[in-house]
Amino acid sequence: MSILRITLAQINPTVGDLAGNRDKIIRNIEKAKEKNADLVTFPELSLSGYPPEDLLLKRQFLDDCRKTLKDVVTESNGITCLLGFPEASGSFVHNSAALIHDGTLMGTYRKILLPNYSVFDENRYFKPGNEGLVFTLNGIPIGINICEDSWFLNGPAKLEVQKGGARVIVNISASPYFAGKRELREKILRELALKNRCFILYNNLVGGQDELIFDGGSFVLDPEGKLVASSKQFEEDMLFFDLEGAQAGFIEPEDADPSISPDKALTGEVQRVIITSVALRVKQPVVTGQIRWLDYLDEVYSALVLGVSDYMRKNGFPKVLIGISGGIDSALTAAIAVDALGAEAVVGVTMPSLFSSEGTKDDARVLSDNLGIRLLSIPIEDVFNSYIGTLKPIFSGMAPDVTEENIQARIRGNLLMALSNKFGWLVLTTGNKSETAVGYCTLYGDMAGGFGVIKDVPKALVYKLSEYKNQKAGRSVIPISIIKREPSAELRPDQKDQDSLPPYDKLDGIIEAYVERDMSYADIVGMGYDEDMVTQVIRMVDRNEYKRRQAPPGIKITPKAFGKDRRLPISNRYTHSD
Amino acid sequence: MSILRITLAQINPTVGDLAGNRDKIIRNIEKAKEKNADLVTFPELSLSGYPPEDLLLKRQFLDDCRKTLKDVVTESNGITCLLGFPEASGSFVHNSAALIHDGTLMGTYRKILLPNYSVFDENRYFKPGNEGLVFTLNGIPIGINICEDSWFLNGPAKLEVQKGGARVIVNISASPYFAGKRELREKILRELALKNRCFILYNNLVGGQDELIFDGGSFVLDPEGKLVASSKQFEEDMLFFDLEGAQAGFIEPEDADPSISPDKALTGEVQRVIITSVALRVKQPVVTGQIRWLDYLDEVYSALVLGVSDYMRKNGFPKVLIGISGGIDSALTAAIAVDALGAEAVVGVTMPSLFSSEGTKDDARVLSDNLGIRLLSIPIEDVFNSYIGTLKPIFSGMAPDVTEENIQARIRGNLLMALSNKFGWLVLTTGNKSETAVGYCTLYGDMAGGFGVIKDVPKALVYKLSEYKNQKAGRSVIPISIIKREPSAELRPDQKDQDSLPPYDKLDGIIEAYVERDMSYADIVGMGYDEDMVTQVIRMVDRNEYKRRQAPPGIKITPKAFGKDRRLPISNRYTHSD
Repeated sequence: MSILRITLAQINPTVGDLAGNRDKIIRNIEKAKEKNADLVTFPELSLSGYPPEDLLLKRQFLDDCRKTLKDVVTESNGITCLLGFPEASGSFVHNSAALIHDGTLMGTYRKILLPNYSVFDENRYFKPGNEGLVFTLNGIPIGINICEDSWFLNGPAKLEVQKGGARVIVNISASPYFAGKRELREKILRELALKNRCFILYNNLVGGQDELIFDGGSFVLDPEGKLVASSKQFEEDMLFFDLEGAQAGFIEPEDADPSISPDKALTGEVQRVIITSVALRVKQPVVTGQIRWLDYLDEVYSALVLGVSDYMRKNGFPKVLIGISGGIDSALTAAIAVDALGAEAVVGVTMPSLFSSEGTKDDARVLSDNLGIRLLSIPIEDVFNSYIGTLKPIFSGMAPDVTEENIQARIRGNLLMALSNKFGWLVLTTGNKSETAVGYCTLYGDMAGGFGVIKDVPKALVYKLSEYKNQKAGRSVIPISIIKREPSAELRPDQKDQDSLPPYDKLDGIIEAYVERDMSYADIVGMGYDEDMVTQVIRMVDRNEYKRRQAPPGIKITPKAFGKDRRLPISNRYTHSD
Repeated sequence: MSILRITLAQINPTVGDLAGNRDKIIRNIEKAKEKNADLVTFPELSLSGYPPEDLLLKRQFLDDCRKTLKDVVTESNGITCLLGFPEASGSFVHNSAALIHDGTLMGTYRKILLPNYSVFDENRYFKPGNEGLVFTLNGIPIGINICEDSWFLNGPAKLEVQKGGARVIVNISASPYFAGKRELREKILRELALKNRCFILYNNLVGGQDELIFDGGSFVLDPEGKLVASSKQFEEDMLFFDLEGAQAGFIEPEDADPSISPDKALTGEVQRVIITSVALRVKQPVVTGQIRWLDYLDEVYSALVLGVSDYMRKNGFPKVLIGISGGIDSALTAAIAVDALGAEAVVGVTMPSLFSSEGTKDDARVLSDNLGIRLLSIPIEDVFNSYIGTLKPIFSGMAPDVTEENIQARIRGNLLMALSNKFGWLVLTTGNKSETAVGYCTLYGDMAGGFGVIKDVPKALVYKLSEYKNQKAGRSVIPISIIKREPSAELRPDQKDQDSLPPYDKLDGIIEAYVERDMSYADIVGMGYDEDMVTQVIRMVDRNEYKRRQAPPGIKITPKAFGKDRRLPISNRYTHSD
């Protein structure tokens, strides 16, 4: 029985670390050989890391990528390998897949459909390819796609199946995570499998890169669209899949729907490369199965943990520092940090003021004990009084207002940064998406820090994730009193968030409609929200663009995060017309 | 004698201010009519302001643009008008020019060549057009281009001349400024005029929009490539130009060079619209002349002044606040602010510490007197001591280091923000490009503020602009002692910038090569710079991406500014290989 053994290597490269990525790739090639694989594939731009952004404008970087690719080619004796890399060609750059066989570069496939929306800027860097590539390995014709290429029924996959006779499409991908993205990918690729009556082998990247999480979860669909094998989510993994010649039998594809077609794809040609495996080893079929996908909260929590651990590791920080207020946002942030880095690598600081309640002070202590982290305590009253004294001549006769509240928040920011400077720890910020959206946060105060763990997590989800954490731990790691307490910034006596903001469930709904879905005032009111409340929230979101522009990066987990996903002018007089 | 009178309305719209932009456009139409113009043109996306960024993803915004366009159409009786606006068509958006005649929308031209490099993201929003548009007004055939369309010899202009018989190309543009851009535009459009033997009427936008300055300087080239008329730079203006039928006589264009051709442009078709002017008024020819272009320093200084005044006006701030250190960066920033806003709208603050020299303290006072601005004085020693006392238990036994320096800088940042909060003033930051590049600045300290005036000005140019300012004023507005003093952050005793950094002339040269030109280590060393110095500078630039990510926006005046012009990952292990 002729078996073609394919390995999807779901790796976590680091952007720009060409030597490190090369070594990781070569280690995976070795492992694939040990298990008698015929073909090993790696995700989109694995060699450079994804997205390399403006590194792609540096000629030297592109030359170094080419050199590094040669190292991999040399190490690929006795196996076939498909590897994503940025390919310079004259003055252009392509987002390419190198087809390497037994120590020889056989050809490259160049991504045809380049995403340039949401967090993607691929038209900034890449020239699209214009031809498919089908290689035949041990008699089985395999078409290559890169990420976006497979998101359209009339794209390159159809071309490779119809013109190139492909029976298998391998998609190497770097698909950024948001909650629900995995289901979406599976749905779209299932349609592609069914329309083309082919196997789809989807090899995703894994790892955190600044704002983005790549969630892995690579998988195989058969020509009936059935999920027949899958990889772990949020970790490196190798998926082995055996394909028999008969199993990949070609069935006439259905006509694809032309209405969603990118017009150019089907006009291209297809390169054909025929490879006879150097070592068609005798092999027992591998047992491939489907890994159980994570539940919603488990998935989001895992994404946040991976985001923190990779930001730390890839930027070389030994420890993190978190301002622990006794509120739920910093509690969840600390819990995630401990799961990502271990308790030894997390330091908490409580910075009580005159307005800090006994309850929050106690809770900060209990939380730290529960997490097993060190907690420093630095009261801010002396520093606050010195600011007030220093500013007295200028502020004389003026009533206290938000200024004095912000001074407190900024003292805390300064103290965190002083510890960061002195000890080399990274400050994690604790603001959630709801606050970030409406600007209920202080620039250079609680916004001060290097990385925003829950920046894209709406407040209601902060609660759910906290309860999830406790449930999973089997104990109240995050004290119930923190979860139950009414949220407060504690910057003036008896302050409550709800004095300044709509109730969080309503706020989150309006933010989702306005920010994530770009809905109009009228349509949001049409959903049943109060007119004044919608006006207030839209105004707050619009006005606080300047604050968000200076926020640290944070982990994207929704379809539209603040950051490079949402690009609005600061100078902007557009207001909803009602 | 049949004269076609064309008016290039060089206006300064505000992004999103649809009603305000509409009213400005209608006022300009009225003025054009008063002067018997046949055609009045407005810059690219004048109706929405440029760039509207993700406002273009809001359906309501596009609908509102369409409504606002109708208002303009209604007001255009008795004249022909060409107006840039975002045109929704089904699920697509085009960057379009509306051709309006005598109260009727005759057609739209859709920009064909969309820039997606540097600060541009037009592929994120727009679908490219695929046909030219030539309209004949009083017998003279005029082709429409939008900005980038005219930057390629084989682009839409050639199509409109060769297939559409155009004798005049009107280019409506929103071309962001950098020093030298005007000469570049003129050179490229001169080639286009010569190749096609046609008139080029280039109508640029003017105004500041966040990081970008649009410098105006609209102009007319005749078919010989001669500059025959031009507008003011950095201000609104109306350029009237009379074209006689005979003068626009069509001469066979030369063959364009196919090597620089965007491949698709010449395959398109050309719409033809024939318009007979409603009121071919008897008119005396207008006298058009060429405005003297500004010299280099005058141009850069004007750009900075416009950037400040427009950021203030468009965001509704009444006054600015500047930390005056007695150094040259804050001195130049204050001088620019006074020229932009008037002395009444500028408040200085000096915040001396133990390490502030008598010289800088005196200079801060003299500078403020020279500029006629109010100067507040807030010593930071008490607050500094309270931080040191508060942190003593945690820092005990550790030597002072950069931590204590940063605390001082951040105290100043906090004080500036406290004044900003209390009085509603915008804080201008004073960091230059050299410091920003190598991270010689403190996050939340001297980087705290809303707008970075000289963020893209290299240190050597800071000196030149300061001398230029004094020369123009005819007196030492910026005290000579400030210009002569060796630069120092004054955060520890006897600190000098040159203790930590290469000499500024060398630093600026390496930064230009590495940041603006993306040159490699080897190539920069090849320019004659010391190897260790190049290594040091590259490392500092790379390492400080995280700081720049949280910097306020600032005015772009070089070919590549930090901000949306340069997009590098923070998590990035790429280092030059030597």
